[in-house]
Amino acid sequence: MQKEKLAKQAKNKPLQKLGALHRLHKGLINIMPLQTGGILTDAAKEALIEFGDGYSVCDFCLGNLCNITNPPVQDFVHELLPQFLGCEVATITHGAREAKFMVMHSLAKPGDSIIVDGNRHYTTIVAAERVGLNVIEVPHSGYPEFRIDVNDYIPLMEKHNPKLILLTYPDGNYGNLPDATKLGKIAQEYGIPYILNGAYAVGRMPVKLSDVGADFIIGSGHKSMASAGPCGVLGMKKRWEEIILRKSELFDNKEVEPLGCTLRGVPLITLMASFPYVKERINHWDEQVAKAQWFSGELEKLGFKQLGERPHRHDLLHFEAPMLYDISKRVRERGYFLYKELKGRGIWGLQPGLTKAFKLSTFAADKEQLVFVIDSFKAILSKYS
Amino acid sequence: MQKEKLAKQAKNKPLQKLGALHRLHKGLINIMPLQTGGILTDAAKEALIEFGDGYSVCDFCLGNLCNITNPPVQDFVHELLPQFLGCEVATITHGAREAKFMVMHSLAKPGDSIIVDGNRHYTTIVAAERVGLNVIEVPHSGYPEFRIDVNDYIPLMEKHNPKLILLTYPDGNYGNLPDATKLGKIAQEYGIPYILNGAYAVGRMPVKLSDVGADFIIGSGHKSMASAGPCGVLGMKKRWEEIILRKSELFDNKEVEPLGCTLRGVPLITLMASFPYVKERINHWDEQVAKAQWFSGELEKLGFKQLGERPHRHDLLHFEAPMLYDISKRVRERGYFLYKELKGRGIWGLQPGLTKAFKLSTFAADKEQLVFVIDSFKAILSKYS
Repeated sequence: MQKEKLAKQAKNKPLQKLGALHRLHKGLINIMPLQTGGILTDAAKEALIEFGDGYSVCDFCLGNLCNITNPPVQDFVHELLPQFLGCEVATITHGAREAKFMVMHSLAKPGDSIIVDGNRHYTTIVAAERVGLNVIEVPHSGYPEFRIDVNDYIPLMEKHNPKLILLTYPDGNYGNLPDATKLGKIAQEYGIPYILNGAYAVGRMPVKLSDVGADFIIGSGHKSMASAGPCGVLGMKKRWEEIILRKSELFDNKEVEPLGCTLRGVPLITLMASFPYVKERINHWDEQVAKAQWFSGELEKLGFKQLGERPHRHDLLHFEAPMLYDISKRVRERGYFLYKELKGRGIWGLQPGLTKAFKLSTFAADKEQLVFVIDSFKAILSKYS
Repeated sequence: MQKEKLAKQAKNKPLQKLGALHRLHKGLINIMPLQTGGILTDAAKEALIEFGDGYSVCDFCLGNLCNITNPPVQDFVHELLPQFLGCEVATITHGAREAKFMVMHSLAKPGDSIIVDGNRHYTTIVAAERVGLNVIEVPHSGYPEFRIDVNDYIPLMEKHNPKLILLTYPDGNYGNLPDATKLGKIAQEYGIPYILNGAYAVGRMPVKLSDVGADFIIGSGHKSMASAGPCGVLGMKKRWEEIILRKSELFDNKEVEPLGCTLRGVPLITLMASFPYVKERINHWDEQVAKAQWFSGELEKLGFKQLGERPHRHDLLHFEAPMLYDISKRVRERGYFLYKELKGRGIWGLQPGLTKAFKLSTFAADKEQLVFVIDSFKAILSKYS
């Protein structure tokens, strides 16, 4: 009997774990690059509860999510988003990767080639793989800056005749901002459709399709638009609407590529609720850049080395910290000592286990909090010296 | 000046509408077929706030969403879901339509044929169209029952040599439950992969891939698993894992078809938080069926005619109401009178504008509430007689 009871308990354990789902990092200073642009506004938190139930965003559906007037999805998708993205047509997606797949799947066929920057997110490669594309990468300049020179697209475009090109702006590894506008001119000259992946730009900093001269602009709600995950936005020139948002042959109010409707739930509502705030916050981007540069300088005074472009123009920062790595080699917790030390001080965001090099973002923390982060690094170095 | 101010106000109007996002139907008796299975549990509501911020479900990501241990996504996806779905391998998706596309895109090539039931959801067709497939439909029996006889798959399978077959169980129009198990035997005999689309079954009623003999089983979180939208589940036989969840050639911990990770955000957390409740509630399916049959009988006493299978075996019901339609022809609000009358009485769920025939679901309302719904229909008929 006892054995059976234990077996039953063991079997129920995974179910019991679902009993109380809590975040360990709640309330800490957040410098996690994936998270600093996705923290909800109060308005989004309220909307989350209001539209939490299943399909409640579709209360007044008349066949197409993007045309729902209550809540005002139609205004958001067809007026506010195009204005914000500087494009003629916009839609909503499950995220940046799903937007990339939609465009690739619509414009290219298995065996076709595309050209992307060497700092591309892994999902750019995986989306292309899902379509069956041949991906050619424009190499970056290597350590320590890892810069992309957009002129390097030209010989590869001439050689491979790609169906489209993609630039990651900025990339998620170094926060580098290549010359997207120059690539816009190149793309137009060669007549090749150009995707700007702005998952870390749209919603953080001013960026518009019309200024860049791209054909498509992609943003991430959970990464940079103060939204719950997963959600994203896709803007495009009018000329692509009939291809990307082509209608079903059988159902003339349903778009094929989004499978009818994509973001039919609560992440969309958070995107909409946070939008007025997000629209305003991009006007303060200069302050964000100044804060990032100051922070980077302070960490370099401690002996850290900032990788990526210098001077840096984005809150996403990548550092090498050889002295933290040295400590990790002689402490019991190995690389995890840094995560623990920071967490003990109320700071969260470096990937647990990393010490030699790591990414962080200064976007969500204010200057006072960042002073505390800098002082914490000082204290940790001193504690183990 | 005044003109400029007005122009500015007009421009800001769409933005202002985002100021307060509220549901008009909050607190009403919900008989909306798309919504009755997706109402959140209290646990899911708490989880919604806890994991609302952007990528917070990925706090402890080590490269693959389905392997995250805190929150316990790994246990949920790799232990609890397969048990629940009666299959060897499970994963999470953005919804049922995205799961259908994943399977079709993995198993079939443009120009290939598939066979589906004539009561299929429109997204089955659109997903196939996105892949470029030729869809053959097994006809239903027509008015008034619209039954699918799964034996009718056989001649079409012999004629078209399909890459896969799909059955909608139940369909979303009539709530009919065809003989899924018999189709499992047929599929196995012919060696054709078989998708069971259980968007209105999984999470409402007992249904297992192993019992049915299907190759794939698909569920919808927002439709039937007490979850926020959008989210879904996909279960499969082990033999399909390497095809559907094939790894990227370049990134060996990333699956191509889900583009790395799918449901990276708050809908997943609601799915997990509600799961213990959902797992339990399917044991009370008999009571749900009895309630639906009783309700249907009561409405028929008023002169409504229930379409679809009789006796009915699902909470999703479709009625014709010619006398309501007659009223709509002579009142100012036309078909909208019924929506308004019901809403005035605290009842929500018939599509606004419909009177001649409409769908509803008895899943979320208790018997006392349904008595009130029946009495309300009586009162409306009497008011306009």
